[in-house]
Amino acid sequence: MTQKAIFYHAGCSVCIDAERQIAAALDPARFDVEIVHLGNDRARIADAEAAGVASVPALVIGGAPLHINFGASLADVKGAA
Amino acid sequence: MTQKAIFYHAGCSVCIDAERQIAAALDPARFDVEIVHLGNDRARIADAEAAGVASVPALVIGGAPLHINFGASLADVKGAA
Repeated sequence: MTQKAIFYHAGCSVCIDAERQIAAALDPARFDVEIVHLGNDRARIADAEAAGVASVPALVIGGAPLHINFGASLADVKGAA
Repeated sequence: MTQKAIFYHAGCSVCIDAERQIAAALDPARFDVEIVHLGNDRARIADAEAAGVASVPALVIGGAPLHINFGASLADVKGAA
């Protein structure tokens, strides 16, 4: 059975590098990785906030946020509407 | 063939959480993960710096550093000698 992992990003170059390095590196036998672009899918910003995501790129595994390097704050992503 | 991934940490709780969430989640078919505790293995601090690691916990994959959340700066780790 796989566990859900959500990778939140906003299309920035830091995000894309992190996606290639981390989201693609998780064990596919154990993790079902969903990639969410918060710039394109703004309805998901509330989910990211609820999971404790403060900046992107971030990976949420088991409900806990892991902020990976720093692309943009969630406030900036929200402000870019 | 597996690629080398090095997870640098310093024993802090943020580090240990990240180790459980990320280092353990990488695909073992593709990555050979080495865990390095810089507090215990101070000779490796120079390797971490050379890879661009500025804070721990950090994961170096393909030579590029990914800083995951924030436990301590590398300067703090060095200062704790």
